[in-house]
Amino acid sequence: MTGTEQPLAAPVNWQRFLAERTQSMKSSAIRELLKITQLPDVISFAGGIPAPELFPVREIEEACSYLLRHEAKTALQYSTTEGHPPLREFLAESMARYGIHHGPDNVLITTGSQQALDLIGKIFIDPGARVLTCRPTYLGAIQAWRAYQASFATVPLDDDGMQVELLEDLLRTNPARFVYVLPNFHNPAGVTLSEPRRRRLVEIARAHDLILVEDDPYGALRYEGEDLTPIAALAPERTIYLGTFSKTLTPGLRIGWIVAPTDIRQRLVQAKQGADLHTSTFDQMIANDIAQRGILKVHVRQLRQAYRERMLTMLDSLEEFWPEGSSWTHPQGGLFLWARAPEGVNALTMLKVALEHRVAYVPGVNFYPDEDGGHNAMRLNFSAAKPEMIVEGIHRLGMTIRDALAGGA
Amino acid sequence: MTGTEQPLAAPVNWQRFLAERTQSMKSSAIRELLKITQLPDVISFAGGIPAPELFPVREIEEACSYLLRHEAKTALQYSTTEGHPPLREFLAESMARYGIHHGPDNVLITTGSQQALDLIGKIFIDPGARVLTCRPTYLGAIQAWRAYQASFATVPLDDDGMQVELLEDLLRTNPARFVYVLPNFHNPAGVTLSEPRRRRLVEIARAHDLILVEDDPYGALRYEGEDLTPIAALAPERTIYLGTFSKTLTPGLRIGWIVAPTDIRQRLVQAKQGADLHTSTFDQMIANDIAQRGILKVHVRQLRQAYRERMLTMLDSLEEFWPEGSSWTHPQGGLFLWARAPEGVNALTMLKVALEHRVAYVPGVNFYPDEDGGHNAMRLNFSAAKPEMIVEGIHRLGMTIRDALAGGA
Repeated sequence: MTGTEQPLAAPVNWQRFLAERTQSMKSSAIRELLKITQLPDVISFAGGIPAPELFPVREIEEACSYLLRHEAKTALQYSTTEGHPPLREFLAESMARYGIHHGPDNVLITTGSQQALDLIGKIFIDPGARVLTCRPTYLGAIQAWRAYQASFATVPLDDDGMQVELLEDLLRTNPARFVYVLPNFHNPAGVTLSEPRRRRLVEIARAHDLILVEDDPYGALRYEGEDLTPIAALAPERTIYLGTFSKTLTPGLRIGWIVAPTDIRQRLVQAKQGADLHTSTFDQMIANDIAQRGILKVHVRQLRQAYRERMLTMLDSLEEFWPEGSSWTHPQGGLFLWARAPEGVNALTMLKVALEHRVAYVPGVNFYPDEDGGHNAMRLNFSAAKPEMIVEGIHRLGMTIRDALAGGA
Repeated sequence: MTGTEQPLAAPVNWQRFLAERTQSMKSSAIRELLKITQLPDVISFAGGIPAPELFPVREIEEACSYLLRHEAKTALQYSTTEGHPPLREFLAESMARYGIHHGPDNVLITTGSQQALDLIGKIFIDPGARVLTCRPTYLGAIQAWRAYQASFATVPLDDDGMQVELLEDLLRTNPARFVYVLPNFHNPAGVTLSEPRRRRLVEIARAHDLILVEDDPYGALRYEGEDLTPIAALAPERTIYLGTFSKTLTPGLRIGWIVAPTDIRQRLVQAKQGADLHTSTFDQMIANDIAQRGILKVHVRQLRQAYRERMLTMLDSLEEFWPEGSSWTHPQGGLFLWARAPEGVNALTMLKVALEHRVAYVPGVNFYPDEDGGHNAMRLNFSAAKPEMIVEGIHRLGMTIRDALAGGA
């Protein structure tokens, strides 16, 4: 131990050492926002946060005790990059029920779904390579792929999800590395890709030899209607499917997964080796224990009931409190809806006022990767706040919008 | 639920979609090897694996129960990219005792040290950019940075670690993004960078305006001699320091950290947001609980005692069982030593025979990022196997080497 040394050194100009790709890397607006909205008196519709009071805490404690008493030497040790084999088997079986027929050797466990997006960027995106998405699209995907200097080209979405028929036109001028689709209960838009559009998307993908990335974090959280066919079931040869426990179990454990054709799964394993060796063995085994004991299934049923109520509460409150000229989507599941204030309201500048009223959301502009859009739109999360807080928060937001309209904002 | 759809599709030629960087990505020889060496009758010196029988299992179970009873809503929820604040405070304080005076806001928690290497690659390495290391050097770093198409230039090491005085010559023809140093109980070489060389390295770095990446996974595991000054204490303005709980607590939790000057720490936070949002909240809080209760300190003392005995057993066994012309390093700590069979033995081809004798190691050639080397060398881990197994394994390896010499290998 030799104590402090006072540096006599000149300051370092770090800028000149940075890789070119850092120029396209930005902090996520949402994650920065989350810091503000953690203040206890703010009603936040900003995060994508599951209801913490519904976490299956006792069951997780049982899992921890069991694992540490019977399998500690495995649970706390290094493990394989591919992921805990029983968990991969569970996932392969449960996806087969949705028509996705891949074995456990096609599954890779990831450190949350965000890592899946990062690994996909790493193996597919050269600087300037094009990714096709809809607009708006998921912010975390934009962030992951901007770090690999992706360029984006987009088609709009409507109540039936991505307008896939517009892809063909786009493809004429924009050869793409892959198409990113979030078919169920879209983040941020809350809409679901219709069955005919799923089939049309697959036809287009086959005709143009395109890869499809299907991101499905919320698929199990359906509150209305019937499950639709996953794209990975329609086009298993060219679809990379992403799942996660963050919304159905808990996000703090960071357990996601990728299902991919063998060649690509092997590339993703290589990329993950360099990225973090493997996902927490302990967290994987906790998730596996909860899943294998049938607790996950029961828990998801409870979540569906609770979130459905919150969603309906939000829809009712929007109807009641928001001024004429506002509009919003009516999701069939998931965590979000997409609401638009009347034309002329700028949801980005209005956020400051909303925070003064102790209510938060994510401004729509953040979800547009290429062209500008969503100026009067906002993403509203309905899973985190309890129903009475949702009523109050939507009320406050309605007043904020009325103020903005009155002030000519 | 709509059941299976049989694809009518032509197979996809994935190759044409892959990013250029995938050409420099390879599976880690060690991680592939680990799969073989998990067979129960193989005595493995191949991994970098802590002794599982020494994990503080009961204390971890206490931590889990406490956290799930009192802080479950936080422990299982999303958290900030920067990492759990009390853990960052603990780390800042404990590093201050080694002369590294950075506050908690300069600490970033990572998903193991491997992620730290990946994030450093992401923000510093443009395709073709040069990284300076010693030869041999840590395989995980090579793997992480090859994925960003780094090129490597190296200087040899000796018993005092990296021959830093050779860097100046190298720099004349090789402008570098940074110098990677593993000063304490080097992986794979087991040697320690001497105090004069640390100071010389800092002089060179200041004269040439170089960034230093100091990787210190084993620093707390010293069995002989006095702690030396961390490079981050000598040159805080230009050093990025990497630590981990993988060797001192358990690797299954995947908790590492980076300490860096403010500008760079902010860049690393951005990179991590896109990479995995944040490290497992639960695992961070377990590690924090163990650290704050003083258990980590006691545990590290036990590890030092146990691993010291294993290291000495290995050194004695090498002396006893290996043929003349062999040599090895004598570490002052850590998990590895570097052993050389007599000239002419090819440690890579010999591995197959060694595995037939149910003993494993990592061939030296894997640790050379640029030029060829280490043909008769192997990395031997002494932390995972119990002393009696170390004796037996080194005996078997000695026989394998004698056979190789007799066979003219």
